Amino acid sequence: MDMRNMAVTDAIAARRDLVNAAIGEDLPVTSPERLYKASRHLLDAGGKRLRPAMLLLVGEALVDVNPEQTDYREFPTLNGVTIDLMAAAVSIEVIQSFTLIHDDIMDDDDLRRGAPAVHRAYDLETAILAGDTLYSKAFEFMLETGAPADRSVRALSMLATTCTKICEGQALDVAFETRTDVLPEEYLEMAEQKTAVLYAAATAIPAILLGADDETVEALYGYGLDVGRAFQIQDDLLDLTVPSEKLGKQRGSDLVENKQTIITLHARQHGVDVDSLVTTDSVEGVSEAEIDAAVETLEASGSIDYARETAERLVADGKARIDVLPDNEAHDLLLDIADYLIDRGY
Amino acid sequence: MDMRNMAVTDAIAARRDLVNAAIGEDLPVTSPERLYKASRHLLDAGGKRLRPAMLLLVGEALVDVNPEQTDYREFPTLNGVTIDLMAAAVSIEVIQSFTLIHDDIMDDDDLRRGAPAVHRAYDLETAILAGDTLYSKAFEFMLETGAPADRSVRALSMLATTCTKICEGQALDVAFETRTDVLPEEYLEMAEQKTAVLYAAATAIPAILLGADDETVEALYGYGLDVGRAFQIQDDLLDLTVPSEKLGKQRGSDLVENKQTIITLHARQHGVDVDSLVTTDSVEGVSEAEIDAAVETLEASGSIDYARETAERLVADGKARIDVLPDNEAHDLLLDIADYLIDRGY
Repeated sequence: MDMRNMAVTDAIAARRDLVNAAIGEDLPVTSPERLYKASRHLLDAGGKRLRPAMLLLVGEALVDVNPEQTDYREFPTLNGVTIDLMAAAVSIEVIQSFTLIHDDIMDDDDLRRGAPAVHRAYDLETAILAGDTLYSKAFEFMLETGAPADRSVRALSMLATTCTKICEGQALDVAFETRTDVLPEEYLEMAEQKTAVLYAAATAIPAILLGADDETVEALYGYGLDVGRAFQIQDDLLDLTVPSEKLGKQRGSDLVENKQTIITLHARQHGVDVDSLVTTDSVEGVSEAEIDAAVETLEASGSIDYARETAERLVADGKARIDVLPDNEAHDLLLDIADYLIDRGY
Repeated sequence: MDMRNMAVTDAIAARRDLVNAAIGEDLPVTSPERLYKASRHLLDAGGKRLRPAMLLLVGEALVDVNPEQTDYREFPTLNGVTIDLMAAAVSIEVIQSFTLIHDDIMDDDDLRRGAPAVHRAYDLETAILAGDTLYSKAFEFMLETGAPADRSVRALSMLATTCTKICEGQALDVAFETRTDVLPEEYLEMAEQKTAVLYAAATAIPAILLGADDETVEALYGYGLDVGRAFQIQDDLLDLTVPSEKLGKQRGSDLVENKQTIITLHARQHGVDVDSLVTTDSVEGVSEAEIDAAVETLEASGSIDYARETAERLVADGKARIDVLPDNEAHDLLLDIADYLIDRGY
């Protein structure tokens, strides 16, 4: 890891620790205890807190504060008054956690972040209810920043439409499973709705709450959207290119499970018989040689390069958009985070 | 049915038809179609639209309008400007529908309003996602009334805390199933959280949006809470007192299924061996004679009277609270609805 990447991961980690402390404050385990324990289960299992860290960094970049002297609970806006920017950061992370809990039920996944999924650690009823509780709590938190009412309404409105889009994206993802004619562009649209909109909300909402002009809000929304889409593509790439032991799961498992990714969709469009790439149908049974051969085919069809170039283009676009921000350390970190998301090895 | 009850049901029905039309406008079946069809499934299966009708009636009572000359989409506030009060009514009904979809999954119920539950008509994944979509849509709708921002923030805040309370109430209900020492007061508290808070939100939110003073908002919240709790108790009473053919399901099915109600909790507290009241363990197998005997025991212990008196007291309390409203037809209807909820035979 080079020096710049280390600065990025350090910056994210420093904010992650503060976000974790704030989650403990804002979402205590109260009665009914089982419900709130289940609601905290995934949040307590770890995570980089990338979205809330980016939210805080946007705030720092906009208002040009020194993070070491900043209390995110009394964060200066562009108009003098202070708001609880941390409440907005927690809100975004809580939405993310709600979607993961319900996604794990829908995908019948047993593990998440190395811990049992909520519907395994507890039960289906509790997992549905824990997700539903986090959903409304996230709206409560976003209303508790103390921002002027008109800004709160705009932030809430963005949060609500973001959640609707995430649901629509998840529904598209499910619908794609039974289609063999999905285009790479359709996949990108789905990934945008399912994943990238929450990055966009995380980077645009602090600008709304702090009183930035419309042009800045829009630029930051676009930055989040581009970076979020690149992040999703990178996830698909990592599944093929990172050794299993580093990845924490079998390399190529997307291929084994016939998951459509931008890579397989590009390959199919270019004549590759994607369904025959990996014939072993269990992650436990597949050999490294079979994955190697599949990756070689996907390289030959230009599909891996296509994904890589698409991600790189998105990151370049996203970085250009935030030229509207003042020049400062937080701005530089937002640029570096965009690069880091497609440089990261795992 | 007497004349007053007929006026009440007519008034609710007239507003129900308008709410149904508004649901069609605000929640069209767009892409992804399967998701939006599933989201509309229960809403299209019927329902009295009691909560949105009460929301509209509170608006009419406060602003003293003639409903026949009123466009709920451009409803006069107490300060001259108009708002889309119907959007708030739809929001409340959509929240109700979301909770029913997820509740049916949690209770593994196959039928709702005579139609298959969403997770039966579609599948588990789609039902979870349809509920999640309605959740965020309800917040979107509540933000689209055009009310001044400070009122929208208050309304949103009430909607979010209401949803949190509904989840907490449902979690308590689940927890009670494995306890034999639940007190009637605890049951009432649970019923309040699970059911009554949405009535309270439906009657308080129009007051907030229309610019009523805090005293009025609080009185209307209390009215909704009292009436909602009475409604829940009446549901428990109906299960024991209405003939099966009129009820649309086996009379006494709560007893067969060992569901705790305020009636059984009172009886247990007064020495009745509730678990032995009905020994048949299937709704199909139970005889009317067995239910008759159980009801006789519950009458002898004063449990049925206790429930009836509690509901009557709540309705009287609720009615007294809305003395703050101007004298007009809508005010009278809100009083009559409170009575109707515990007079209704089914």
